[in-house]
Amino acid sequence: MDHQYGRLLLVGGTHGNERTAPWILQCRKAQPALLASPLPTTTCIGNPEAYGANRRYMDRDLNRCFTEALLRDRSCTIREVIRARELVDTYGPSGKDPHGLVLDMHTTTAAMGSSVVTVGERPADLALAALVHQAVGMPVYLFRINEDHPEECGFLVRRWPCGLVLEVGPVAQGIVDMRTVRKTVACLEGVLAVLGDCLTGKAKLPETMVVHRHLGSLDWPRDGNGRQIACLHPDRPRWDWTALCPGDPLFLMETGETVTYRGEEPVWPVFCNEASYEEKGIALALTRRDTMTPPADGLEVLLGLLRS
Amino acid sequence: MDHQYGRLLLVGGTHGNERTAPWILQCRKAQPALLASPLPTTTCIGNPEAYGANRRYMDRDLNRCFTEALLRDRSCTIREVIRARELVDTYGPSGKDPHGLVLDMHTTTAAMGSSVVTVGERPADLALAALVHQAVGMPVYLFRINEDHPEECGFLVRRWPCGLVLEVGPVAQGIVDMRTVRKTVACLEGVLAVLGDCLTGKAKLPETMVVHRHLGSLDWPRDGNGRQIACLHPDRPRWDWTALCPGDPLFLMETGETVTYRGEEPVWPVFCNEASYEEKGIALALTRRDTMTPPADGLEVLLGLLRS
Repeated sequence: MDHQYGRLLLVGGTHGNERTAPWILQCRKAQPALLASPLPTTTCIGNPEAYGANRRYMDRDLNRCFTEALLRDRSCTIREVIRARELVDTYGPSGKDPHGLVLDMHTTTAAMGSSVVTVGERPADLALAALVHQAVGMPVYLFRINEDHPEECGFLVRRWPCGLVLEVGPVAQGIVDMRTVRKTVACLEGVLAVLGDCLTGKAKLPETMVVHRHLGSLDWPRDGNGRQIACLHPDRPRWDWTALCPGDPLFLMETGETVTYRGEEPVWPVFCNEASYEEKGIALALTRRDTMTPPADGLEVLLGLLRS
Repeated sequence: MDHQYGRLLLVGGTHGNERTAPWILQCRKAQPALLASPLPTTTCIGNPEAYGANRRYMDRDLNRCFTEALLRDRSCTIREVIRARELVDTYGPSGKDPHGLVLDMHTTTAAMGSSVVTVGERPADLALAALVHQAVGMPVYLFRINEDHPEECGFLVRRWPCGLVLEVGPVAQGIVDMRTVRKTVACLEGVLAVLGDCLTGKAKLPETMVVHRHLGSLDWPRDGNGRQIACLHPDRPRWDWTALCPGDPLFLMETGETVTYRGEEPVWPVFCNEASYEEKGIALALTRRDTMTPPADGLEVLLGLLRS
């Protein structure tokens, strides 16, 4: 490797109908001064074929294709698995053009604002999320990988030693909306500034950070034919990141009846009304708001990756 | 016919990924007291197969399938053409279960609020639009049919003697968002109240009405490969229904360059950033704001349809 620092991979369009990040990468290519990065940075469209077709994916959600088993099975011809293998073989930590860090930029139709997602709780991811949370104020969602559910494994970021997902919403699929572009650029600038602080030795972990730990998800109430028969209850002014307490209105049924939340403790919903989760049977995800100490060893790993 | 009044057909889900109106029709079925109509009313999902698949359409946009030629060509097996024929044969004015009026309820990803669209300028449509505009205040968009472009003919409402399109936005495709549901219900209540006023003889056309006449549409600037290389300029706080004057910022190119509007007179954009118009090469539609006298003969036709 002929570079001084670890390298950063910026990915947009892992889902082909989320057009915001690809648009930002396109502008960055046309205007190289935009989004100056403190370390060598490569940009790419995660799923170019789906992006061309303006679809989330062609054969299978690319962001569920990065499992060891799928990557290893060279006989598998699912288009997204082939693409996942290509990305890992090219830009993965042991690839031809190795990168140590990845940022995977997404949008959602949920009114979540901007947030940082870690897939699992690897120390380096948590440390970077803590620094970003401290610098930019974005809420942090710790997604729990469930090996028993193929829908909940095989995420892109897990193939790199350190990687975060950026989520920005609400925005409809298939469009470039300038407000969402600006929110995403602001997040990205925040992450790049944090990485710069890491390189110059200025980064210092906060003593504590607030995180939202994934607990599970709820499907819509459905009838015998699988038809959705409720929507999110309109009596909550804001759904995402706001405590849902036992007894609170949850769903409004087609009959007009209110279904309340029956858990035993408050939960914090996220991804409420994400359009592409219909097929995954997810009306909303539930998290528990928690305070934790960011892992100091994670910062060591991160600094090591940045300086290697 | 065993009824006293003309009948109204309420259609939702003409585009299968616009979930708001189907949800309203579903609630109305579960709660018959909702949206009481002053005249015999039938509800239906325009494109049930696309609705089941959560796609705009399967083979062809249903709302471009109602041309005489397609309906007549019984050898044509495009799924949406078969469905169009079925709707006309069943509920059309000469069908088995004839209806004189139709309301076709849509949503858009454009931030247009609620509006009424007439396809063409038939007097009865204009009269009903004028009454709705007067009662509810929704802007009226007079879409011009261009027989030379198949993308601009074959609309559902044209197969009924009188029919309006309701458009509500912004909302992402594939979700039921309660704010959009409420806006749509409010429009629908307004239209039903107007029809009630017509039946009781209370309806009186306004002397003038403001309309937005379709002039044409603009595609995105594209590169040689057809790739979109500009987005709507962010320096306008509101795009839809707001005058765009010669010299105003129009597109922001990927290079950062601003492209201004070069027309010779002000225009009023609508359907700015409608996600499903990407494939039609429409970034936004342009209209001319105009004041007109609603046609008195249109009201006569409308009253005739309601009382027949």
